[in-house]
Amino acid sequence: MFLAQRRFCFLGNKTEFLKTICSSKILGFSTYSKMSSKLKNAKRIEGLDSNVWVEFTKLAADPSVVNLGQGLPDISPPTYVKEELSKIALVDNLNQYTRGFGHPSLVKALSCLYEKFYQNQIDPNKEILVTVGAYGSLFNAIQGLIDEGDEVIIIVPFYDCYEPMMRMAGATPVFIPLRSKAVCGKKWSSSDWTLDPQELESKFNSKTKAIILNTPHNPLGKVYTKEELQLIAHLCIKYDTLCISDEVYEWLVYTGNKHLKIATFPGMWERTVTIGSAGKTFSVTGWKLGWSIGPHHLIKHLQTVQQNTIYTCATPLQEALAQALWIDIKRMDDPECYFNSLPKELEVKRDRIVHLLESVGLKPIVPDGGYFIIADVSSIDADLSDMMNNEPYDYKFVKWMTKNKKLAAIPVSAFCNSETKSQFEKFVRFCFIKKDSTLDAAEEIIKTWNRQRSQSGQNV
Amino acid sequence: MFLAQRRFCFLGNKTEFLKTICSSKILGFSTYSKMSSKLKNAKRIEGLDSNVWVEFTKLAADPSVVNLGQGLPDISPPTYVKEELSKIALVDNLNQYTRGFGHPSLVKALSCLYEKFYQNQIDPNKEILVTVGAYGSLFNAIQGLIDEGDEVIIIVPFYDCYEPMMRMAGATPVFIPLRSKAVCGKKWSSSDWTLDPQELESKFNSKTKAIILNTPHNPLGKVYTKEELQLIAHLCIKYDTLCISDEVYEWLVYTGNKHLKIATFPGMWERTVTIGSAGKTFSVTGWKLGWSIGPHHLIKHLQTVQQNTIYTCATPLQEALAQALWIDIKRMDDPECYFNSLPKELEVKRDRIVHLLESVGLKPIVPDGGYFIIADVSSIDADLSDMMNNEPYDYKFVKWMTKNKKLAAIPVSAFCNSETKSQFEKFVRFCFIKKDSTLDAAEEIIKTWNRQRSQSGQNV
Repeated sequence: MFLAQRRFCFLGNKTEFLKTICSSKILGFSTYSKMSSKLKNAKRIEGLDSNVWVEFTKLAADPSVVNLGQGLPDISPPTYVKEELSKIALVDNLNQYTRGFGHPSLVKALSCLYEKFYQNQIDPNKEILVTVGAYGSLFNAIQGLIDEGDEVIIIVPFYDCYEPMMRMAGATPVFIPLRSKAVCGKKWSSSDWTLDPQELESKFNSKTKAIILNTPHNPLGKVYTKEELQLIAHLCIKYDTLCISDEVYEWLVYTGNKHLKIATFPGMWERTVTIGSAGKTFSVTGWKLGWSIGPHHLIKHLQTVQQNTIYTCATPLQEALAQALWIDIKRMDDPECYFNSLPKELEVKRDRIVHLLESVGLKPIVPDGGYFIIADVSSIDADLSDMMNNEPYDYKFVKWMTKNKKLAAIPVSAFCNSETKSQFEKFVRFCFIKKDSTLDAAEEIIKTWNRQRSQSGQNV
Repeated sequence: MFLAQRRFCFLGNKTEFLKTICSSKILGFSTYSKMSSKLKNAKRIEGLDSNVWVEFTKLAADPSVVNLGQGLPDISPPTYVKEELSKIALVDNLNQYTRGFGHPSLVKALSCLYEKFYQNQIDPNKEILVTVGAYGSLFNAIQGLIDEGDEVIIIVPFYDCYEPMMRMAGATPVFIPLRSKAVCGKKWSSSDWTLDPQELESKFNSKTKAIILNTPHNPLGKVYTKEELQLIAHLCIKYDTLCISDEVYEWLVYTGNKHLKIATFPGMWERTVTIGSAGKTFSVTGWKLGWSIGPHHLIKHLQTVQQNTIYTCATPLQEALAQALWIDIKRMDDPECYFNSLPKELEVKRDRIVHLLESVGLKPIVPDGGYFIIADVSSIDADLSDMMNNEPYDYKFVKWMTKNKKLAAIPVSAFCNSETKSQFEKFVRFCFIKKDSTLDAAEEIIKTWNRQRSQSGQNV
């Protein structure tokens, strides 16, 4: 407020206007006697107002803090991606509305790209929907397909919006946690975290409308194997259940792993909506473009939601994305193709952060994919006595670390329902899609921290 | 599909891949035996799949057609607006996520701009929400504030998404038509269309949660007067009702008219959400940015919807919009300020299209604002016998005109509920935010049409 007002003052000759503001404020223009019941929120959003990103992004906004919190790349996006947008911005008609379900050149590029993986033709107009980020795809899928009273299986930990989106649709989320087997001596890996097959089947019943899958997984970095996906596919078919497959980190898999699409498993195309992201594909999270791919009998319902919520996505961004995709579609076997070069670049960063976290006594779980790493922080004997007591341990730890160590992360219990928070509250998530200077700064913090630990005998 | 596939062929060395596609198609990869009940849409979107824009935009896509249909400017957006985006696209961190409820520099610019009109300070973080177009603001307001079973008053004709958005929220729309007084001898004006005060009050009751106002009005071009707004404000207060005020054409008012904000009427700020649009403000409909302004006790519920639907809007577009706004905020009293120059430019186009439509025997209603004009087409004795019989007259007329005259428009009954369609099916809507060459082409069509009419004795 003050900033804006100061700026207005700079504009000069607005004294009259500022006087008006002041006098109307004195007259109490915006005060009113009692809150009417008509000013209340709709029931569908009751209790859905808290959000981990709002809280922790604010905390990390201090410029002295090294932010490994939100999944926000600070590496440069590819030059050709930025340049495409820069050129397209100057073309008149690419600044106007385009087709509601996806800009024609973009849906064509996407169909061409994904045909390779689905090993089948994908109708650009009927089987693809371009959305406001993958977030928008999740919302469209849930609002278009999930009814009040439906049950939806969510694997814990989960990208935090899955639960409130289900609740907004009036559905009942049914949670199942990933559990880690014991690791003795060897590195702890995201592949050590698995679903128990009997436990998973016990969650399915006649009311189960869908399961949400996320591979590569955020925050664990788990890349589901063929056998794991086969089990999920088998249960989806057995219980006639939809699968919403969030695959936004599809390109980001590390040596020894392969991303598989559950929609390509026998019997799964017809019941799967697969979600992708431009932000994750080209490291431009601020473009807020995503897509849903699936059979027309499902996608058409997501299209109906789109035309009654936002109608269409931004044209210049869609055209720039299409052009950028064509550049990489033409060189998919080339190491310079961004789909190949980014995971190579990130794997080095992953290895660096594993080493860093271990050096300070944290127990990282080495991710097989994605750009996050979670680490057990329980071995750090931090003094959290200043922190609010009713919060999970990881919330307190992250706040303590942000304040005292100037290093920001995200608490993993934010990715859990209330019943499973205690299983994950010893973990925090770090984002490693960061330029070397950011990781250098993190390293500096961690080294200092390590020295302090050695000197003080652990309690920091 | 074919285009994309052909394009893929050009990429070379993909023969193996194309073979795979063909063989998998033969094996019937995407066929399955029977449609499961689980693949159905959610009830909330039942019957909401038809959309006038999808149908008529497709019809107007024929390049030989002069398109005065969709509200899509083909004039150039201001150079500085395009250039801001072009520059910002190259800045790394402006391609990443920003604050979910609105990019900081944009909400500051908006608060500074609107303080002038509200004559009060507007908190950029608590009283403004940036959305995916004004469309997104409407959706957020409806989902955030309107419950199943609530009644909402909608004035007919109305921007077509109001009704399905209300139905998606489970609300009951209550319709009231604008009615025209008789006009003898003088030009027919949008100001001749008014609400009957008794009829309006009869629509309010204890279940009324909100009224949607749209001024300047689409499709009529009506600019509500102080007296008309006072009546609506009085009823909102008397019946403790919210007002969702869609003011996307706020800058586009013509000589002799003034846009007033109902939120500035006594007792209205606390119960009004006012909606604006970057697309309409700067003739960049493809940017899909809009905003809601109102008291925090209402805006916070729209924010909750945002964080559970799309989370945030595109950063580069928001920053470019902020920079463009500052340029015009600094020169608001200057005729070159786009908020002043665009309506001047459009008024000339409006007068031209009035004259054109009259010349062919149509009866236009001269708009006081906005960039649409509707005209009574019933005096044209068009031969519609080839058209589908179960459609309203204006749907048939527009299809006939698009096919036979190569001139596209939008049927006004698309802006009506089923009960009032018959009152408006003699009207079609033309968009006049078009460059001179487009209006020249329309003039050519209309002159030829006029000659044919004179020769054939009306039946064209």
